[in-house]
Formats: sequence, C-alpha cells, structure tokens
Amino acid sequence: MKNHLLKLILFTVLAALIISCTSEGTKQSESFTAKKVFETPVRPAGQKDVLELRCDPIDTVRMAIIGLGMRGSGAVYRYNFIEGAKIVALCDVVPEYVERAQKMLAEAGKSKADEYTGAEDWKKICERDDIDLIYICTHWDLHTPIAVYAMEHGKHVATEVPAALTIDECWQLVNTAEKTQRHCMQLENCNYDFFEMATLNMAQQGVFGEIVHCEGAYIHDLRWLNFDDTTGYWNMWRLKHLEKEDGNTYPTHGFGPLCHIMNIHRGDKLNYLVSVSSDQFGMTAYAKEKFGEESEYAKRNYAKGDMNTTIVKTQKGKTIMIQHDVTSPRPYSRIHMVSGTKGFVQKWPRKGIALEPDAHSFLSDEEMEEMLVKYEHPITKGVGNKAKEVGGHGGMDFIMDYRLIYCLRNGLPLDQDAYDAAEWSAIIELSRVSVNNQGMPVQIPDFTRGAWDKLKQVTYY
Amino acid sequence: MKNHLLKLILFTVLAALIISCTSEGTKQSESFTAKKVFETPVRPAGQKDVLELRCDPIDTVRMAIIGLGMRGSGAVYRYNFIEGAKIVALCDVVPEYVERAQKMLAEAGKSKADEYTGAEDWKKICERDDIDLIYICTHWDLHTPIAVYAMEHGKHVATEVPAALTIDECWQLVNTAEKTQRHCMQLENCNYDFFEMATLNMAQQGVFGEIVHCEGAYIHDLRWLNFDDTTGYWNMWRLKHLEKEDGNTYPTHGFGPLCHIMNIHRGDKLNYLVSVSSDQFGMTAYAKEKFGEESEYAKRNYAKGDMNTTIVKTQKGKTIMIQHDVTSPRPYSRIHMVSGTKGFVQKWPRKGIALEPDAHSFLSDEEMEEMLVKYEHPITKGVGNKAKEVGGHGGMDFIMDYRLIYCLRNGLPLDQDAYDAAEWSAIIELSRVSVNNQGMPVQIPDFTRGAWDKLKQVTYY
Repeated sequence: MKNHLLKLILFTVLAALIISCTSEGTKQSESFTAKKVFETPVRPAGQKDVLELRCDPIDTVRMAIIGLGMRGSGAVYRYNFIEGAKIVALCDVVPEYVERAQKMLAEAGKSKADEYTGAEDWKKICERDDIDLIYICTHWDLHTPIAVYAMEHGKHVATEVPAALTIDECWQLVNTAEKTQRHCMQLENCNYDFFEMATLNMAQQGVFGEIVHCEGAYIHDLRWLNFDDTTGYWNMWRLKHLEKEDGNTYPTHGFGPLCHIMNIHRGDKLNYLVSVSSDQFGMTAYAKEKFGEESEYAKRNYAKGDMNTTIVKTQKGKTIMIQHDVTSPRPYSRIHMVSGTKGFVQKWPRKGIALEPDAHSFLSDEEMEEMLVKYEHPITKGVGNKAKEVGGHGGMDFIMDYRLIYCLRNGLPLDQDAYDAAEWSAIIELSRVSVNNQGMPVQIPDFTRGAWDKLKQVTYY
Repeated sequence: MKNHLLKLILFTVLAALIISCTSEGTKQSESFTAKKVFETPVRPAGQKDVLELRCDPIDTVRMAIIGLGMRGSGAVYRYNFIEGAKIVALCDVVPEYVERAQKMLAEAGKSKADEYTGAEDWKKICERDDIDLIYICTHWDLHTPIAVYAMEHGKHVATEVPAALTIDECWQLVNTAEKTQRHCMQLENCNYDFFEMATLNMAQQGVFGEIVHCEGAYIHDLRWLNFDDTTGYWNMWRLKHLEKEDGNTYPTHGFGPLCHIMNIHRGDKLNYLVSVSSDQFGMTAYAKEKFGEESEYAKRNYAKGDMNTTIVKTQKGKTIMIQHDVTSPRPYSRIHMVSGTKGFVQKWPRKGIALEPDAHSFLSDEEMEEMLVKYEHPITKGVGNKAKEVGGHGGMDFIMDYRLIYCLRNGLPLDQDAYDAAEWSAIIELSRVSVNNQGMPVQIPDFTRGAWDKLKQVTYY
C-alpha cells in the first residue's frame, strides 16, 4: 500500500514536471515574450527620483574639463564664449593636450587653469571643494567612473556620449544622481542641431499628429580614424572597442533626439528591443587595402559587425529603428526620421517634410524652409546665430554648452536628465545581448522605476 | 530496501528533470538561437529541384489571364504589344471586367478570348489542353490555389505578388513545381525597374565590393484605396487583410530585387529574421477624419500595425532590413539600398551612389547618370525604350512580361523561380509569427532543401 502511494506520488510529480517543461515549450512558440535579462534593482531607501531636478542657482559655474582630446579641446574653445562659466581645472594624461588647452584660455584672455596629467588625477579634481561642474571628455571607459565619483563628491556632471557602457553603469549613474540629487547630463549634442530642434518643436505642436515610428542612426565611416595611431583616438581606444564588442556600440546621436520627440519616460517608455548585426567585412577589407593582405591589422579579429540594426518597441505601441555603422564606405547619416498620423520628416540622406493631405510628396524646398522658419525652436532662435559663429558641428555643440550653463545658473532642470543618459546608453549592452543571441528580444529596464508617466513631455526650460 | 531504491530513483529522476529545466533556462539567456517554428518537409521521392529549370521552347505562348482588376487589366493591355503571346482566355467574377479586357484585345486587332465569369472557372481553364501559361492576377488568397492547380494540369504559372500567404502555401508551390517540373514565376515587377536592374548589374560586376547590408520596403499610403468600396480592391479584400493580420503582409516589392543582388539561394541563404510592428494608429485616425468619430470604420479593429520592420540575417553574415507601411501619410518608398565594402547606392527618398575612395559623399547627378548609362543592364538596354512607350509602372511591368514570354519561347530558365516565389512570400507568415511573439527570432526555411549553394548568382538569360 505504501509502495503504491509512493508510486502514485512519483507518477504525479513526474507528470506535473513533464507537463510544466512541455507547456513552457509550447508557450514559447505561441506567446513568447521578450527576455528579462537585466533585473531592475529596488530603489535604495531615502532616494527619490531626479525628474526635472532643480538645484540652487550658481552664479559662475566653476568647471573642470577632464579629457582634452578631440572633444575636450573643442569644449575649451567653446567655453571661452560662454558667459558665467569659468574653467578652473584641465586634465589629460597627455601633457601637450593640457598645454594646448591652456593656450586657448590665454588667447581668449582667460586666467590659467590648474593642470592635472596623472592617470587618476580626476579623483583629486572631484575631491576639490571649489568646483561646481565636472565636464567629462575622456575615452568611453572612464565616463561612468568619473561621473559617479564626481556626484558622490557633490559635483554636477556633464559627460560625453555614451554616458555608460553597461546596464550596471546605467544604474550606477541613476542611483548616484538620485542619492546625491546632483545633475547628471549626457552631452548629447545632436539634440541641439537646428533641424532636430525644429522637428522637436513641430512634434510637440502636433504637426505630425500622433507619432508612430521614428528612425535614427550613427552611420559614419570612421575606418581611417580608427586605424590612425598618431592623430586619431588616444591609444587607439576606439579600435579596441571594435575588436571586443558587437551590437550598437554608439547609439545616442541618433536615438537621443528621437527619445525626446517620443516623450520617452515622459508619458511613454522603452519596453523591449531586438538587434541584429551583419558580420564584419569592412575593417578587414580596408586593412587589406591600406596595410596589405598580410598585415597584422588585416589578420586581426574585429567583433563589431559592420551594420547593426535595432528595433525598439515602446509601451504606447510606437517603434524606433536605430542603426550603427562606422566601418562601411557610405555618406554620413543619422537618418532622423519621424512618421506620424499627419505627417513625416526625414533629415538624411536629404531633408524632406511631407504633410497631410498631400503627404504623398515632399514639400518643395521653399515650403520646407518656410516650415523651418515658422517652427524654429525658441532656443535656436535665441542663440542660433552666435552658435553658428562659434561653431562646433555647425553650432549644436555651442548650443548644448550654452544650455547647460544657462540652466545651472538659473537653477532650472537640465534638458537631459540621468534617465535620458541611462536609457540612451543602455542600448549598447541590450543590443549586444540581443545580437549575441540571434536577435533575441530583450526587455529594456525602466530606469525611472515607475515614474515614466509623471511628466507629459520634455521641456527645455 | 525496495522503498529505498524507489526513493533513490525518484530523487535521481527529479534531479535530472530539474537540472534539465534549469539549464534550458540558463541556455536561453546565454546562447539563445532562432526558433524553428516551421519544419522543412522531406522532399517526396522522385522529385528534383527546379533550379534553372529549362522546358521545351513554346513558339506562341497561349495564355489565360485570371483576375482582371487593376493588375489583370493592365496585363491585357501590355500583352497586346508582346510578340509570341496570345491571350486565349479571360476570367473574372465581374463580367464588366471581362468585357473591358475583350475591348482592349479588339482595339489592338487581336482575336476574341474565351470568357469565364464563374467563381471556380479558373479550374476549367487549368483543365484545358490548349493553354501553356496561367497568368494569375486575382486577390491574394487565390494565388497559390490557382498556381498549384495549374501546374498539376501541366501549365506554366506566373502569379502576382505575393505568390503565397503562408509557409504551407510556399511549400505547396515548391513541391508542385518540383513534382511537375513546370515554371512557377512570381510576377515581381520591381526587379525589372531600370534603376534596380542597373544596381543588380553593378553588384554582379563588383562595383559595391562585398555586399554587407541591404534595405528594401513597401511604403505606400493606400488608406484611400483600402476604404474605397467602389473603384478600389474587389469586395474590399485588402481592407479585410488589414483587419486580420499583422507583420509584413506585402514584402516582395522591396525584398525581391535585393535577394537577387545578394545571391539568395545562389550562394547564400536566408537564415532567420526578427520582426516588430508598431501598433495601429493610421487607419483609425484616417477613418475618424474621413467618416467621422462614430463611423463604423473608425470603430473597427485593424490588426495590422502601421509600420513593420523586419531584419533578416543570411548564412554568409549579411543583413537585410525590410519595412512595410501602407497606412501612414508619407511619400512612396521601396528604399532599395545596397551597402558593400566598396560602395553604396540608395534609390529612395533620393537616388544616390557613393563609391570608394570618396564614399563619404554622393556622386554628383551627372556622375551618377554616367554610372547608370555605363552599367545599364543589357535587358533594359535592349527593350527599355519600348517598355517606356507601353508603360506599366514606368515600363518595368512590360519588361517583366517581355522577359517571361522571351524565356518561355526560347526554353530558357525564367528570371524568378519557384524558390524566389517561396522565399520572398515566406516573409509574410514568418514576420507575423515574430511580431506576435514580441520580435522572437524565427528560422527561415531553406526551400531548396540544401541546394542553395549550387548556383553562384542569378542569371537573366
């Protein structure tokens, strides 16, 4: 009798297990959902969100620029034209870059900044008590470590893109910003380009109707720069990333402007993505051509597939397609396409606007120019001419710097918050996981932890 | 003792099962692969592949056109200009359409064709023994049933796109073509457009180097036509498809030309895809505007999301991005983009070619025209002028018809074979499965069952 009972239990348990395993299988082919690869950590006690964070106004923003290569030296130049900002410290491991930056300050009649050239000197800078803003222009790997350390030492932070390289780093930025209530702005300059700002304005004024689908990209042939061991990226750091990682490794330039247009974490949120890369052909073909079939560069392995295409689905049912290709011979493009129920706009390969009821054809160039004048964003209207004079990618870099300092001086929320930084950078690791698993759909963390519907749109105060 | 043994067995089996379930879970997040949703059926005994199938030359191709709506009536008109083709039967359930077609024949001085207006009269036509070619222009649902029935009755088949609506229908086409050794050509007219043929020629001559990534689309605002209950699609069949199905429901116009350029089943093959659709906004917004907020059309459910984006990965590591949107207000586009290690071309929104070593900018319009002259495809060079005179989407429809008849008359392989028809149409159900499972990657069947590497490129004989 006892035996019988045991057999019955055995049979029942086995049957249940078999059914559970099988139905798991069936479920996957019938109602499969995106994988939760990254858990959302619970918000530590005492922390609160930093949506539209306002801090005390700062009359003169004392800043340190860390990293003085291509991006950093451009920033030093631009800040010479920005009222209310004072560069008090300059830092780079290459002493010549520090000297070059000092020279720029001198030429603009500004006082000399303190100099730092040690590999970990950024810590000393963050530890000073006479600095308000740490402006990070190093190679990618140091963005989050410096940003976190800076906020922990009471500083506001502005960091070059991408702000973070992993989901863990994204959470570090968000948690540190929430804990310290400091600003953490990613320096996404493309949000400030004239056309992008006009389309944001049009979108917010309903010109495109309900926005359904957007497309962005970073398509930029950087092969020569990646292989340039003298004037290119310091220590060829960008080449090393191409060797190590696949996916969309640099998503923010195309993605940032679209996320603001689509009200991401301001009424909508990113739910999941799928991502597929082509194999790598471009770097090897280029290296063979330039350095010879037998060269070390031609034989090296590059993990990064040439073209990465990622599709994101949002909570409100919208889609965003983003691409990354820096190793194919083709003209530059960030696409910047917005498609809604009433109209359509695309910036690359050619600017065009099409509107109901004649959306089957693009507006003439004259009509488009009229639209761009009519809907010019108040910010570019105000500072656009000066921006074009100072320059920096046609002016957008200056507008970005101007806005950062303007908001800090007036105690206003910054245009880009810590959640933007996390969301836009998160594509890097999320897409890599998807690519490495044949396009497996991956859930995108909600970095606001439930507060994504509190605001209704982005406001550039 | 017996009890102990039983417990031991129970424990071992349970442990094994638990481990197997768990490791399945771990495996999925670490090395997930595309799901094999559709099994490849074993090739029935006695069947052989139809790659580059050659049949007996036919001096005068006696043909029946079934379906005389928008596409069918255009075909009747065009065939009046094609030597060696004779329309012997006309079939449509709308008697006026048959009359209209007869009139076209009469106006061209051709003899009257036999008339059929019964819903199943296509069977009678296929059963006749004095017809060589069945040319199918019905609504989508009848393409495969008629094609299969026609081949089983010894006829060659040319069918409007999409040739099939499901994977099962794809296999029906392939198996019937292999069994009967009859031609089964999908009438993908876009493969014959002048620019597309030139890019095929450029690709085959190595202008773009190794091709890495391509993009195609069917972006065509058809809202007014879908809601047109009089002059639109017969019985509003296309609206009904929008109500029932999501995914890329009409992939072949953008996909076909790219598959030939990328040597699909001629040295490379489609391995898996991911597909994501936006929700539906366009049809409802349009219906509200046109028929009123309270109209039945405004309240109806439409399953088809406005924008579908699909990414395909091939065996050789290439990617193809294809889109479908017929319900958003935007200019027409099939994209038609080809990106390789030496160059780049894109047709929409604006024709452009960019080549090494200056691929960072597009060729001037003059240089591009020179390229298009230099690389004009021999076929358009031969018949292009006549095609432009006759018309049909700018001439490509005529070239398609001309090629079909030319190859049949000369006993040559057709430009598009049964595997093309299956591969290009398969996207419909494969994308739908992916969309309905949050972008789950889905394996793409190899319709050649292993013969995809036998040929090295497509040849338009």
